[in-house]
Amino acid sequence: MFKKVSIIGLGLIGSSIIQAIKQYQPDIRMTGFDINSHVRKRAQEIGLIPADKGIITDTFEHAVKDADLVILCVPVGATSSAAGDVIPCMKKEAILSDVGSVKQNVIHQILPILDRHKRQDIVFIPAHPIAGTEDSGPESGFATLFVNRWCVLTPLDDTDEGAIGALASLWRSFAANIEFMTPEHHDKVFGITSHLPHLIAYTIVGTAADLEDDIKSEIIKYSASGFRDFTRIAASDPTMWRDVFLHNSEAVLDILQRFNEDLTALQRAIRRGEGEFLFEAFSNAREIRRGVIDAKLQPTSDAKKAS
Amino acid sequence: MFKKVSIIGLGLIGSSIIQAIKQYQPDIRMTGFDINSHVRKRAQEIGLIPADKGIITDTFEHAVKDADLVILCVPVGATSSAAGDVIPCMKKEAILSDVGSVKQNVIHQILPILDRHKRQDIVFIPAHPIAGTEDSGPESGFATLFVNRWCVLTPLDDTDEGAIGALASLWRSFAANIEFMTPEHHDKVFGITSHLPHLIAYTIVGTAADLEDDIKSEIIKYSASGFRDFTRIAASDPTMWRDVFLHNSEAVLDILQRFNEDLTALQRAIRRGEGEFLFEAFSNAREIRRGVIDAKLQPTSDAKKAS
Repeated sequence: MFKKVSIIGLGLIGSSIIQAIKQYQPDIRMTGFDINSHVRKRAQEIGLIPADKGIITDTFEHAVKDADLVILCVPVGATSSAAGDVIPCMKKEAILSDVGSVKQNVIHQILPILDRHKRQDIVFIPAHPIAGTEDSGPESGFATLFVNRWCVLTPLDDTDEGAIGALASLWRSFAANIEFMTPEHHDKVFGITSHLPHLIAYTIVGTAADLEDDIKSEIIKYSASGFRDFTRIAASDPTMWRDVFLHNSEAVLDILQRFNEDLTALQRAIRRGEGEFLFEAFSNAREIRRGVIDAKLQPTSDAKKAS
Repeated sequence: MFKKVSIIGLGLIGSSIIQAIKQYQPDIRMTGFDINSHVRKRAQEIGLIPADKGIITDTFEHAVKDADLVILCVPVGATSSAAGDVIPCMKKEAILSDVGSVKQNVIHQILPILDRHKRQDIVFIPAHPIAGTEDSGPESGFATLFVNRWCVLTPLDDTDEGAIGALASLWRSFAANIEFMTPEHHDKVFGITSHLPHLIAYTIVGTAADLEDDIKSEIIKYSASGFRDFTRIAASDPTMWRDVFLHNSEAVLDILQRFNEDLTALQRAIRRGEGEFLFEAFSNAREIRRGVIDAKLQPTSDAKKAS
């Protein structure tokens, strides 16, 4: 499959890929790089890549020059900068991939850089592992982060099937389930199922954060009554999510418009005391929950179709 | 403490109180009643109250006539109807309590009924156990639902201290932590920490429910990326929550107004590409999360002060 994989960006996802390779692909050698020297230092201190597996290097060039596969694990907004640095140094016909939560924009960042450097030999395969925790940094990664989670690939037309298969195999070896989508469809689906919920969670937690200190401490004290679930989502990395919203703004603003209409209708019903309207709306929401519970029972059934 | 407790309403909370009494207060006898004959029948079939502990009865009168404590476990909107039925039948100087998520409105429903029936001998102590699951009905209750959860009491001025102490002791025997608040303060705090999050969760899940079937199935499939946490909250009982919003509308609409302003500000920042504004907002939300995690480590420290 791959002899040497280069991980650019040593945050939660990058360090988890390194841990997963150590655990599930012990023959693969690795290099790791992060633009932040403190992060590189921490990664070296904790032995993120043991000496017999590879190295955390201090230059892009050293990180990618022999790699068969380079995975950009940077915030979406840092993609073009990182890609501009690594692409000129990459080995001929190597594969370039990423882990960004937005796919159209990442593609729009990377394609002109491949063009500019005349590196059409590089096989670019956009990817998005649907996995994460509220932690960040090189210490936060762990090998099983991707187990039974989806990894969505959004390959461009005419991408080499062998390269797609090799990348999919690597992710499957981490026990992830592979799915394929167009970049447009990906951004729409995750705009609804991931980006909007994060925006709403950030908002509601922010609204509470702006209240007076005494009532804020009580909200925290009684957070188990509903609020706490939102705080978990709202603890996600601010840089990552700033970039997601800036770079998938069209899909997010579109679904946000619908959300606002629906919220206004409920607000109006509360003000006017329209109990039946509220009851109907709340009952409909319950249906979706059943679907989610059923889906969770068989997380791998659809993955088989995709393979 | 209490010799006989009457539970009016055999849903999740009512049936959990019965299970908790069985487990933690084996000497207390019980009667149970539900306005819905199907619910009564199910409760009888599953032996919710075993014959040696008491009975599920078919009349309000039978349910409450010998009870030292009557707990209304009905949706907030059904309070005055249930109170109107039980109050005339209650034993002299018995205690009346409830479990509603809204306190000012429940008090406004019950006080005139006590007046009308000239039952100032009855000691009314409003209560709100902060506990629940997404399940409903007499089979959904379990004895440990209240373990390490708050039970907020909002007694009126001049309420007999002995009665308050007895009710608090019963809840403490279920391993709940007691806190005291004014009804006004309760409704404000839970409007923010519980009612608003539920309204938002219902809205976002409803927004998804209205999408076309093909994308809806994908949202369910990838719900682990954020959406799923909302579906759990939005699976709560529609009748209960309709009543909460109708009967705590002032506090809910007030905090909803702030939420809308904050969401509009984020929406505007996304549209205008203002990354710094987003980053600041998301970073603030993270602070609150730390408070929630710290608070969770010591859930009982404040309870001691209240006792």
